[in-house]
Amino acid sequence: MKKEIAIGIDIGGTNTEYGFVDNKGKFYFKKNIRTDETDDVESYLDILCAKLKQTIIDINGGYEIKGIGVGAPNGNFFTGKIEFAPNLKWKGVIPLVKLIEERMQIPTVLTNDANAAAYGEMIYGAAKGMKDFIVITLGTGLGSGIVVNGQMVYGHDGFAGELGHTVVYPDGRQCGCGKKGCLETYASATGIVRTMLEMLDNRQEESVLRNIEKTKLTSKDIFLAAKEGDKLALEAFDITGRYLGIKLADAVAFSSPEAIILFGGLARAGEYIFNPAKKYMEEFLLPIFKNKVALLPSGLDKDNAAVLGAAAMVWKHIVK
Amino acid sequence: MKKEIAIGIDIGGTNTEYGFVDNKGKFYFKKNIRTDETDDVESYLDILCAKLKQTIIDINGGYEIKGIGVGAPNGNFFTGKIEFAPNLKWKGVIPLVKLIEERMQIPTVLTNDANAAAYGEMIYGAAKGMKDFIVITLGTGLGSGIVVNGQMVYGHDGFAGELGHTVVYPDGRQCGCGKKGCLETYASATGIVRTMLEMLDNRQEESVLRNIEKTKLTSKDIFLAAKEGDKLALEAFDITGRYLGIKLADAVAFSSPEAIILFGGLARAGEYIFNPAKKYMEEFLLPIFKNKVALLPSGLDKDNAAVLGAAAMVWKHIVK
Repeated sequence: MKKEIAIGIDIGGTNTEYGFVDNKGKFYFKKNIRTDETDDVESYLDILCAKLKQTIIDINGGYEIKGIGVGAPNGNFFTGKIEFAPNLKWKGVIPLVKLIEERMQIPTVLTNDANAAAYGEMIYGAAKGMKDFIVITLGTGLGSGIVVNGQMVYGHDGFAGELGHTVVYPDGRQCGCGKKGCLETYASATGIVRTMLEMLDNRQEESVLRNIEKTKLTSKDIFLAAKEGDKLALEAFDITGRYLGIKLADAVAFSSPEAIILFGGLARAGEYIFNPAKKYMEEFLLPIFKNKVALLPSGLDKDNAAVLGAAAMVWKHIVK
Repeated sequence: MKKEIAIGIDIGGTNTEYGFVDNKGKFYFKKNIRTDETDDVESYLDILCAKLKQTIIDINGGYEIKGIGVGAPNGNFFTGKIEFAPNLKWKGVIPLVKLIEERMQIPTVLTNDANAAAYGEMIYGAAKGMKDFIVITLGTGLGSGIVVNGQMVYGHDGFAGELGHTVVYPDGRQCGCGKKGCLETYASATGIVRTMLEMLDNRQEESVLRNIEKTKLTSKDIFLAAKEGDKLALEAFDITGRYLGIKLADAVAFSSPEAIILFGGLARAGEYIFNPAKKYMEEFLLPIFKNKVALLPSGLDKDNAAVLGAAAMVWKHIVK
C-alpha cells in the first residue's frame, strides 16, 4: 500500500512554506517560496503549484496524496477564500481553494493561521486525544483556535476565535483593528514591547534595556533581560501574563477547555510568560474551574509547526 | 398514531414546574409542586413522580411519552447530577437522572437552567433553524447557554457557558462566587439595583426612586422609573447595557453567533436594556462582526419558558 501523504502549505506575508507530511507528522519534504515576489495571486499559484507537481513527479508515484491543507491570514474555512488579509499583497477576496484545486486536481481546505495551529496540536501535538481545548498564538498579534467537542469553532460566518480582539480595557491601547484596549495590544510580542517602553518612560529603576534604542526593542530583548534577572523586564512579563491570564479565565468560563496551549514566539519565553499567565488565570477562575485547566506549551516542533498545522487539516477534514 | 410528548421539569429553589409538551411547543398540561417542602430529594421525587404517573394514567395512554427533560440549577448534562446547587435544599451531589429513571422508567436528561433556556429557543423559540447562537439569561444572576454548530457547548466537564462570571473589572464589585468584578454583578436584576443605589448615593439629581426604601428597590422599580423618563433610571440602564454590550462583543469574538438572545426578567425591560446593549456591543465589535449579529428577545412565552426549555432537550437528545 502506498504511503498516504498530506500537503501542508503555510502562506505568510513574506514566505510560503510547504511540505509533505504523513498522518504521524513525519516530514517527507519541506521547501519554501517567496509569497511577495509576484503581485497577483494567479502567478504566485502558478509557481507554487508547478513546484508541487514537480515534487509529485520526482517522488515517482511513491505516495498517495490525500489532500492539501492551507493556513493563511484571514483564510475562511467555509468559503475557501482569503478575505481582505492586511499583510498580503493580494487585495480583496481571493478564492484560494478553487484556484489551487483547478491547478492541482487535489481536494484542498483552507483556514486561518491560528486555526491551523489548533489543527496541528489536535492531530500531531499537545492536544492529541482532547475534545475541548484552545490554542493561543502569541506572535506579533494574538490569534486563537477554539475546539469544542472535537470541532473547530468557526461560528456562523467562519470568523470565530478572535480572542486577540476581546477587550482588556474599554479605553485602553489603540489596536490596529480600529478598536481600543484589545487583548493583543497587551499580550503579544508587540504588546510586551509597548508595556516595557511605558515602564522605561515612567519608572526610574535601572534596566539593561535602557541601553537599547527604543525603536529597536524586541520581545526577545525583554526575554533575555528577564533571564538575567532584570527587574523591570520580569515585571513586564508579569503584567503581560496578568492581562493574558484574566482573559484566559474568561475563555475558560466560555468553553471550559481541558487545556489551553500557548503557541508562537512569545510563548517560547517559557516560565517567564507561563507562570504569571497561570497564576492570574487561576486567580480569576470561577471556583468550579480552578486547578482543572492545563496551560501547556505547543507540542509541535517550532520550525515545522505552521506546515504541520496546515497538513493536519487534511486528516481532520478530507481523509476523516 | 399516538401523539408524541416530552415531559419538561423546571426545578427552582422554591417551586418545581412540570408539563407535557409536544414537538411544536403545545402544552397538554402544566402543574407545579413546592421544591422546598421536603428536606431530602428522595421524598421530593417520590411526590413529583407519583404526580407524573397519575397524570400518565389520567390521560389514559393517549400519548406516547418520549422522555423527560429537567432544567435545574447546577444540573450537569454529562453526569446527570445536580452538583452543589447553592439555592437548593439538597446539598452535595444529587444523581437526579438516575433517581428519576428508577422511578419513571423513562429516559431522562438534565441540564442547568440557562442551557435549558437555550434548548427552548433552539427548538421552540427565537433560535429555530440557527446553528450558532447564545442565550443570556438576565435574572437575579446572569446565565448563558452557548450553541456552536448546532451543539450546546458543555466543555470537558459540563460546566461551560458561565459568561456571568467573566470579568468586567479585575478589582470591581464583590460577586457571590468569591471573585470580584464578574459581569453578573453589573448586568443582572441585582446588578442594575447595585448601580442605581450607587448613583442615588453619589449623585444629586432628582429621581422618583429616592422615594423607595433602599433595601426594597428592585429592577422593576428602575424599569418603571425609566419608562416615566427618570434620568437616573435611564442612565442606570445605559450603564448596565454598556457592561453587557462590552462582554457580548467579547462573546461574539469567541464564537461568532448569528444571534444573541436576551432572556429573563431584566430582558423584559425591552428597549431600555436592548438599545444600550446593542449600541455598546457594536462599538466594541471587531469590524468583521459589525452589524451582523442580531440581538433578539426570547421567542418563548415567559410563563412557560422554563418548562419548554426542559422539554426541548427531549427532542434534541432523546428523540433526535
